[in-house]
Amino acid sequence: MLAVSVELKAVARKSKLPSERNKLSLRRLGIDTYRENVVYLHRECELYRAEGFQALSKVEICADHRRILAVLNVVDDERIVTPAEIGLSEEAFAKLGLDEGHKVSIEHAEPPVSMAAVRRKIAGERLNQDDFHAIIRDITDKRYSKTEISAFLVASGQTDMDRDEVFYLTRAMLESGERFDWNEPLVVDKHCIGGIPGNRTSMLVVPIVAAHGMLIPKTSSRAITSPAGTADTMEVLANVDLDIGRLHDIVRRHRACLAWGGTAQLSPADDIMIAVERPLGIDSLGQMVSSILSKKLAAGSTHLLIDIPVGPTAKVRHMRQAQRLRKLFEFVGDQLGIDLEVIITDGRQPIGCGIGPVLEARDVMQVLQNRPEAPNDLRQKALRLAGRVLEFDPDVRGGRGYSIARDILDSGRALTMMNTIIEAQGTQPEKYQAGQLVHDVLSPEDGVVINIDNLQMAHIARFAGAPMDKGAGVDLFKKLGDRVARGEPLYRIHAQFPADFSFARSLSESASGYRIGREEQIPQAYVEF
Amino acid sequence: MLAVSVELKAVARKSKLPSERNKLSLRRLGIDTYRENVVYLHRECELYRAEGFQALSKVEICADHRRILAVLNVVDDERIVTPAEIGLSEEAFAKLGLDEGHKVSIEHAEPPVSMAAVRRKIAGERLNQDDFHAIIRDITDKRYSKTEISAFLVASGQTDMDRDEVFYLTRAMLESGERFDWNEPLVVDKHCIGGIPGNRTSMLVVPIVAAHGMLIPKTSSRAITSPAGTADTMEVLANVDLDIGRLHDIVRRHRACLAWGGTAQLSPADDIMIAVERPLGIDSLGQMVSSILSKKLAAGSTHLLIDIPVGPTAKVRHMRQAQRLRKLFEFVGDQLGIDLEVIITDGRQPIGCGIGPVLEARDVMQVLQNRPEAPNDLRQKALRLAGRVLEFDPDVRGGRGYSIARDILDSGRALTMMNTIIEAQGTQPEKYQAGQLVHDVLSPEDGVVINIDNLQMAHIARFAGAPMDKGAGVDLFKKLGDRVARGEPLYRIHAQFPADFSFARSLSESASGYRIGREEQIPQAYVEF
Repeated sequence: MLAVSVELKAVARKSKLPSERNKLSLRRLGIDTYRENVVYLHRECELYRAEGFQALSKVEICADHRRILAVLNVVDDERIVTPAEIGLSEEAFAKLGLDEGHKVSIEHAEPPVSMAAVRRKIAGERLNQDDFHAIIRDITDKRYSKTEISAFLVASGQTDMDRDEVFYLTRAMLESGERFDWNEPLVVDKHCIGGIPGNRTSMLVVPIVAAHGMLIPKTSSRAITSPAGTADTMEVLANVDLDIGRLHDIVRRHRACLAWGGTAQLSPADDIMIAVERPLGIDSLGQMVSSILSKKLAAGSTHLLIDIPVGPTAKVRHMRQAQRLRKLFEFVGDQLGIDLEVIITDGRQPIGCGIGPVLEARDVMQVLQNRPEAPNDLRQKALRLAGRVLEFDPDVRGGRGYSIARDILDSGRALTMMNTIIEAQGTQPEKYQAGQLVHDVLSPEDGVVINIDNLQMAHIARFAGAPMDKGAGVDLFKKLGDRVARGEPLYRIHAQFPADFSFARSLSESASGYRIGREEQIPQAYVEF
Repeated sequence: MLAVSVELKAVARKSKLPSERNKLSLRRLGIDTYRENVVYLHRECELYRAEGFQALSKVEICADHRRILAVLNVVDDERIVTPAEIGLSEEAFAKLGLDEGHKVSIEHAEPPVSMAAVRRKIAGERLNQDDFHAIIRDITDKRYSKTEISAFLVASGQTDMDRDEVFYLTRAMLESGERFDWNEPLVVDKHCIGGIPGNRTSMLVVPIVAAHGMLIPKTSSRAITSPAGTADTMEVLANVDLDIGRLHDIVRRHRACLAWGGTAQLSPADDIMIAVERPLGIDSLGQMVSSILSKKLAAGSTHLLIDIPVGPTAKVRHMRQAQRLRKLFEFVGDQLGIDLEVIITDGRQPIGCGIGPVLEARDVMQVLQNRPEAPNDLRQKALRLAGRVLEFDPDVRGGRGYSIARDILDSGRALTMMNTIIEAQGTQPEKYQAGQLVHDVLSPEDGVVINIDNLQMAHIARFAGAPMDKGAGVDLFKKLGDRVARGEPLYRIHAQFPADFSFARSLSESASGYRIGREEQIPQAYVEF
């Protein structure tokens, strides 16, 4: 289109594109907006009408060919930003990567182009590989607001993506970040879909499998909404925050590590989506598979054991659903060329006794040290899983994995390997202890423990301060089937911070998480194990 | 459950519930977070571990039996909040309703109970009346974050609620707020579903209908993502911000008003949901119907005319979809006892010439004044709509409405009524004018205008500063079917603010919104009108 300007009056001359003087000065605001870019603009901004941008809620910030999208908050307080400034939240400031005082301009933010695909998904359409690539690229670049991510998660969770779509999404997520290559034919890993407190089998499987000589470079997440992740618990014993060079070095030397995966950009879109997904409490099968497989493939695994616990308060509550999930893992795993096995386990109650980093680390070390008080369910589950992982080794005869694992554990070789890993990563200088504020929850009647609610126990441990306070959590004295007398302690809450202690106690008073009844009321295990 | 405390060491004594001294001091932060409660807590807060709340992203703030939920931002800058304070965004501060310095405590926020129903909707279930009541109550109470609202909108938009669900949702929204009762058997209104720039027929229909003696208490919204709402345009001429007493008074005296509806709490859940819906660009039929009908019923209408424009760049693009929408309006309207008629109109291009408050007000006044340069399409459409509204009067013979409307307009009685309304509401003291920064967009070739993109024209007017700047917008010189020569102006952009002027010009350069071609390429009107 041709276009000419009919400029009336002198004021029209101001209409040129903003020069350096016509820009806003960048200010870093110490506000952590938790994985969302936020920009703060004064209502009386000298250059832009803040409210003109508000309805669409996002703006684009531009400087030196860098551009970021951010959600807009309008500010009326000059102590936060002046009319000549633009304030950025911590995430946004880091993403833009410029110094304070830098001159920037802003533009109207178009919704990310890939939102058109999200709208098609909302309308019930099937998306193709290009759609998923575009969506994941925009999410990785933080071009999506949390409301847009929520829209994508619900739209793709609701009609449940077909298995090809799950594969496309997984591949797009995998390709959104870095990827480790260990240059070995057999790089093993195990992963549990989560939801069972105290389930710290990785810290046992890794030393057992590595003692056998297999390569198992285990990177784990920190807890998001659970009371402890493997990285949080391992951190009680060792440094887990390793840069990538050091991580590779340790793995080369000792065949294993137990590190936090956050230093590498492995499937970064996953971290962004999880920050929205968890508070919403939605976790569709397709999203679970793409989240787990994209992370594990990015970490360089060639062989992967997936643990799906089933139980009335587990993530998966019916055997039928577990089988559907298993097939979906197998399909996507096959497409992406990872050798994948699924094991369905008993998820009726927490594993071990401790819930929370210190208490869980204690359980793990008791098992490694073959102590008589070590929780037997944790030991047995870890041996079964380690046995299955060992059988990825072509030289291990089918069915022999379990006894090899047991030999490695009983002989103390697993403990030696664990100590080697701890030393290589760096022993934790701080001596964490269980929280000093304690409160025992007692049985209201004589009987047998017939139910322990995984969600409620996790919730109580979380309120007590886990995982931020390493020593906070819950210590279970009684497990399913144990006989209890009225007034006998069922579990102990540990906390360090008075407010947390009071939150956890109140929560346990509203619902203890335990049910006492008669032997025959105990729900059957879905799985013989 | 029985419970006893085993308190170790003196520190355990701190575990009592917080006393006045053990609370945070309330601080009002001048941050407008646009319809979402946000709370700012210092990372080193003295009483609570800020990060312990972060994963679930929300907290509950409690004081004097008042409780609000708010999204949590963790702050590292003491100028924003100190460790002894809690900062609230403007919305949250107003909602809590306490003074600065008041002592408050915080608690873990449980997700709103009704999110369980949203999750069932995500899983594809049909919701019942109680579910919708619970969801709308929680949304009205601002217990939903924007990500949760997004989840609800997508879940209920995706499978498209069945018509009973739309009825349940509408009733829940209607009952979430106040409701006018005019104590008359015939209270008329008209409403367009939107999407057509310049479509300011209400400002003509209201004076015509009121001059006939019908009661038409028109409350309108301000534009959210469009370049002007009726309230924005009426404000060029008169005060629209009337308290409820004054509004009732004017309506009693003059049978009509043209006021902003925001002073009354009419379907307040609608305003909250729209603030999420619009930036996402989702607008399902069910949500459209419940939004419009809940507002109109709350405003006390007994008879309602709904205008559904159809065209290639209108909200409704196919006659089939328009008919589906019509039936849905009719079904829900019948259930709720409103006498409802739907009219399907030509939505191929903007109505009138001006887009933006000042320019649209000019068009309206030209029609009322029977000026020869008045845009005929605006006049004709307003007469048709007014005619249909007049036929709600049992004394008007079927088919006679149009000529009655025309007589009222041609005789100047509509203009007199408009002036009466303006005077009653209060003449606008400020004399708004069209923006002084102007830019003409010219035709690139000889031919006929074969397409004008509603969305792009609205977008350009919006970028030019409408509706915040009353004088900003676009003035169309050529409409569909008009012959143009190469270099002849198609439309003029008006702006007041240099940054806005440059945004609008750039946008018109990337796509003018016009297509020039041959006569026979003009798309046929879907509707004979």
